[in-house]
Amino acid sequence: MEAKGPSESRTTLTDLVLPSETNPLNNLFGGELLARMDRAASIAARRHSRRIVVTASVNHVAFNKAIPLGSVVTVEAAVSRAFKSSMEIYIDVWVEDRESGRRTKANEAIYTFVAVDETGAPIQVPALEPETKIEKERFEAALRRKQLSLVLAGKMKPNEATELKALFEE
Amino acid sequence: MEAKGPSESRTTLTDLVLPSETNPLNNLFGGELLARMDRAASIAARRHSRRIVVTASVNHVAFNKAIPLGSVVTVEAAVSRAFKSSMEIYIDVWVEDRESGRRTKANEAIYTFVAVDETGAPIQVPALEPETKIEKERFEAALRRKQLSLVLAGKMKPNEATELKALFEE
Amino acid sequence: MEAKGPSESRTTLTDLVLPSETNPLNNLFGGELLARMDRAASIAARRHSRRIVVTASVNHVAFNKAIPLGSVVTVEAAVSRAFKSSMEIYIDVWVEDRESGRRTKANEAIYTFVAVDETGAPIQVPALEPETKIEKERFEAALRRKQLSLVLAGKMKPNEATELKALFEE
Amino acid sequence: MEAKGPSESRTTLTDLVLPSETNPLNNLFGGELLARMDRAASIAARRHSRRIVVTASVNHVAFNKAIPLGSVVTVEAAVSRAFKSSMEIYIDVWVEDRESGRRTKANEAIYTFVAVDETGAPIQVPALEPETKIEKERFEAALRRKQLSLVLAGKMKPNEATELKALFEE
Amino acid sequence: MEAKGPSESRTTLTDLVLPSETNPLNNLFGGELLARMDRAASIAARRHSRRIVVTASVNHVAFNKAIPLGSVVTVEAAVSRAFKSSMEIYIDVWVEDRESGRRTKANEAIYTFVAVDETGAPIQVPALEPETKIEKERFEAALRRKQLSLVLAGKMKPNEATELKALFEE
Amino acid sequence: MEAKGPSESRTTLTDLVLPSETNPLNNLFGGELLARMDRAASIAARRHSRRIVVTASVNHVAFNKAIPLGSVVTVEAAVSRAFKSSMEIYIDVWVEDRESGRRTKANEAIYTFVAVDETGAPIQVPALEPETKIEKERFEAALRRKQLSLVLAGKMKPNEATELKALFEE
Repeated sequence: MEAKGPSESRTTLTDLVLPSETNPLNNLFGGELLARMDRAASIAARRHSRRIVVTASVNHVAFNKAIPLGSVVTVEAAVSRAFKSSMEIYIDVWVEDRESGRRTKANEAIYTFVAVDETGAPIQVPALEPETKIEKERFEAALRRKQLSLVLAGKMKPNEATELKALFEE
Repeated sequence: MEAKGPSESRTTLTDLVLPSETNPLNNLFGGELLARMDRAASIAARRHSRRIVVTASVNHVAFNKAIPLGSVVTVEAAVSRAFKSSMEIYIDVWVEDRESGRRTKANEAIYTFVAVDETGAPIQVPALEPETKIEKERFEAALRRKQLSLVLAGKMKPNEATELKALFEE
Repeated sequence: MEAKGPSESRTTLTDLVLPSETNPLNNLFGGELLARMDRAASIAARRHSRRIVVTASVNHVAFNKAIPLGSVVTVEAAVSRAFKSSMEIYIDVWVEDRESGRRTKANEAIYTFVAVDETGAPIQVPALEPETKIEKERFEAALRRKQLSLVLAGKMKPNEATELKALFEE
Repeated sequence: MEAKGPSESRTTLTDLVLPSETNPLNNLFGGELLARMDRAASIAARRHSRRIVVTASVNHVAFNKAIPLGSVVTVEAAVSRAFKSSMEIYIDVWVEDRESGRRTKANEAIYTFVAVDETGAPIQVPALEPETKIEKERFEAALRRKQLSLVLAGKMKPNEATELKALFEE
Repeated sequence: MEAKGPSESRTTLTDLVLPSETNPLNNLFGGELLARMDRAASIAARRHSRRIVVTASVNHVAFNKAIPLGSVVTVEAAVSRAFKSSMEIYIDVWVEDRESGRRTKANEAIYTFVAVDETGAPIQVPALEPETKIEKERFEAALRRKQLSLVLAGKMKPNEATELKALFEE
Repeated sequence: MEAKGPSESRTTLTDLVLPSETNPLNNLFGGELLARMDRAASIAARRHSRRIVVTASVNHVAFNKAIPLGSVVTVEAAVSRAFKSSMEIYIDVWVEDRESGRRTKANEAIYTFVAVDETGAPIQVPALEPETKIEKERFEAALRRKQLSLVLAGKMKPNEATELKALFEE
C-alpha cells in the first residue's frame, strides 16, 4: 500500500449555523459542533483508507470561542498520522465574519478513526507522509498522543511511553 | 465597490448522505439536495456581497445521476455573475466512489440570490470579474439566463432579449 | 393505460413554518421550501403513475414573497402533463394571514418526475387529460418547457423547438 | 363573532413516511404521527379562531393500523365543536396504497386547543355550526367528551355529567 | 412468566427544550412532547416485556402547563398494568426551574403498548405487580381505563363495564 | 455557596437509537453520541450551578463498543469536580440488550462546562463534595486531568503539574 499525503484526505465542510443548532446564548451547541467534526473527520478517514471507517476516539477538544447563530463555519479535516488500522484526524474549525470577511480559528480537535471491513473487523490502512511544516509537527505529536491514550487506557506503562515521558523530564 | 473573482466566494460543502435523507430507492432525495445547494449557494453569495442574502430563484436543475446512501457528496458554489443587487451562483455537485476514490459530476445547478439590508430592501453588490475560461463562459451565459428569466416572468419582450434571441436565429 | 385528470393527482401539504426552518430574517429558507415542494410533487407523480418516482428536474422557481416564521403554508401539486415516462408537476404555494385568514400566492414551481420500476428503469405512465381552463393552459405550456429543457441540455436544436421558436418570432 | 362551519377550518397535510420516522418494524412511529396530527390540528384551530392556539389535550387515540415506510399519509383535521375559548378538533388519518391507489382509514384522533392572546391568556372563539350528518354526530359527541374530560380531571361530579351518564343507563 | 414490579421498567428521559421544538409562544410544542413521551413509554414497555413493542393507544393527555424554551424536562415512564399482550404505561412529566432547582409536575399521560413478535403478531407479556401506594392506585385505575376504552371502541357494552359503571353510581 | 454532592446533579437520558442516527454499519454515529452526551452533561452542570452553562472542553472519549440501531442507550452524567467557574462532568453510557435485559458499559466520557452570566462572563459555582468510593476516585483524578489539560494548552509547565508528574515517576 502506497503512502499518501494529508492533501489526499483533506475535507472541507462549510455550512451555516442554523436556529435549531443553538444554545440559550444563541451560540452553536458544543454537541452539534462535535457531530459536524465527526462527519468531516469520517470523510477524511475514508478518503485516506477507501474503507468503511468508524469513530474510535475523540481527543481533548477545547471550545475557546463561541460561534453565534447565522455564522459561516468551516470544518477542515485531514489525516495527520496513520497507524496499523487507525488514523488520527486533525480538525481545524474556522468562523467567518460576514461584514469583514475575516476568518478566525474557532477550534481544533483530534479524532481517531479505525478502518473496518464489512464485518466490522479492523483492516490495514496506507501510511501517511506529511509534507508541510505544520503537517510534520502534527505527525510527530500524534505519536505522543497515541502513547498518552494508551497510558490513560491502562494499556501501556507510563515509563514505556518514551515520547511522552520526555515531556515531563524537560 | 471593487470587483471580485469567483475564487473569493467559492464554497465547498462536503458531507455524507445520511439514512434520513434517502428515498425508497435508497438514493438522496431531490429535495434534500436542493436544500444543501441552497445553503452552499447562500454562503457564496454572502462571501461575495458581505450582506444578508435571500434566495431569489432557482434556475433549471436536472437530476441526472442518483446519489446512493452513504455517498460522500461535494457541493461547490461560486458567484458566476453579479448584477445590481442580485448574484447568479453556479453550483457543481460531485459524488465520490469510496473504493476507487474517483469523483464524478452528479449535478449542476444555478441559483440567484439578492443582497438585502436589515429591513429586507435590496442593496448593491460588487461586480464579478471572471478569471478562468470556464468562469468566463458561465459569466457570458448568465446574461442569456437573466433575459430568459425576465421573458418568462413577462418583464421583458422576447425580441428585446437580444442575447437569447440570437440563440434561435443561428 | 387510461388517461387521468389533474384532480386525481392533486396533493395538498399544509404545514407550519417552524423555527428550525428559517433564515436570519426569520423567513422560511428557500432550501426548505424546495424540499417541501419536492415531497408534495413526488406524491402527485406517484398518484398519477402508481409507481416509484424520482425527481428528474426542477424548472425555474422564483421566490417572490418572503414567508415568515409561524406562517401556515399550503403546497398544492398536480400533474400538468405526462410524457412517456416523465410527468411535469405544477406546484402552487399559498401563504395564509392568521388574522384576516386571507390566502395569497407565494410561489409557483414546476418539477419533473420520472416513474421507474424496482431496478430504477423508466416505465410508461398514463396520459394526462386537462379539464379546467388553467389546467389546459398549463398543459400547453408544458410542451414549450420540455422543448426549452431539451434545447438547454443540448439534446434538441433551437430551430427544431417549434413551439418555443414561435415565442421569439411574435 | 359569527359561527363558522367545519369546512372553514379543514386542513389537509399529505406527506410521505420518511426513513427517519420509522420504528424497528419499519412502520411510522406512534410519536411521529402524534406530532403530525398536532401540527394539522393546530392549523385547523387557528383557521377557526384566527388566534394563536396551544394544545390543551389529546383525547384517546388508537393506533389500529401500522403505516409502513414510504407510505403516503393524509392527515385531515377540522374543528368539530367550539366552546368558550377551546376548540375540539377531529382528525382523520388516511393511508394510501401506491399500486391500487386505494385510501384506507388508519386512525382517528381528537385534540383540544385553546385560543390565547399574545400574553397566553385564553380568549373567546367563534361558535362551530356543523353542516353534514357526520359533522353533526361529532358535534353532539363532543359534549359527552368534554364532560368525560371534566369528570376525569375531577372538575365535574360524575352524576352532573348528564350526557355521559345517559350512556351508562341505556 | 414471572411478574415484575414497575421499578423494573421505569425509564427516565431528561433532556432540554431545543429551539427547533417550540411554538410561536416559545413553549414546547404539544406534538414534540407527545413524541418524547412515546419514546420513553416504548422503552418502559420493552423493558417489561423484552419484546418489540408498538404504540396501541394514547389515553387522554392534558397539557396544563406551558414548558418554555431552554427548560430541562424529565419524562418518567413505567408500566402500570399488564394485560395479555398489552401494557399500560403511566408517564409523569416534570419541568425544572433553573434558578431555584424546583421540579414541578407539568403533565401526566397514559399510553398503551402491545408486545409483538418479529412478524408483528401480539405475544404474551409478564404480569405487573404494583408495590407502592401510588403504583397500586394506578394499577386499579388501569382496569377502569381499559373498560372505558373498550366501551368507546364499541367492543364492550357500557353496562358490562362494571368498574366504570360504579363510578357513575356513586 | 454550599457544596453539593454528585447526586444533586445526576442526569439520566435514556433514549432509542433511531434510524436517522446510524452509520453504514447500522450503528449509532460517534457524532450523535457526542451530541447526546453534551446535552446530558450540560443539564448536570446546570443542576449543580443553577446557571447558564456552556461546553468548555471534551476530554478523551473512546468508542469501544458499537451501539446498534434500535438499542436503548442510557447516558448518565454527574458533576465529578467543581473548580472556580468550571465543572468536570463524568459521563457513563450504558446499552441494554432487549432480550436479556442486561446492561453493559458502552462508553465513558468527560466534559468540562463553564457557568456564565447573561453576558457570557464566567461566574463562580458551588464546590463538589464526593460521597461514594467511585465519586472520590473521580474527584481525585479530575485534578490530574485539569493539570494535563493546562499542560497541553501550554498554560502550565509540565514540572509544575505535580499530580500528573507523579504518574510518570512511579
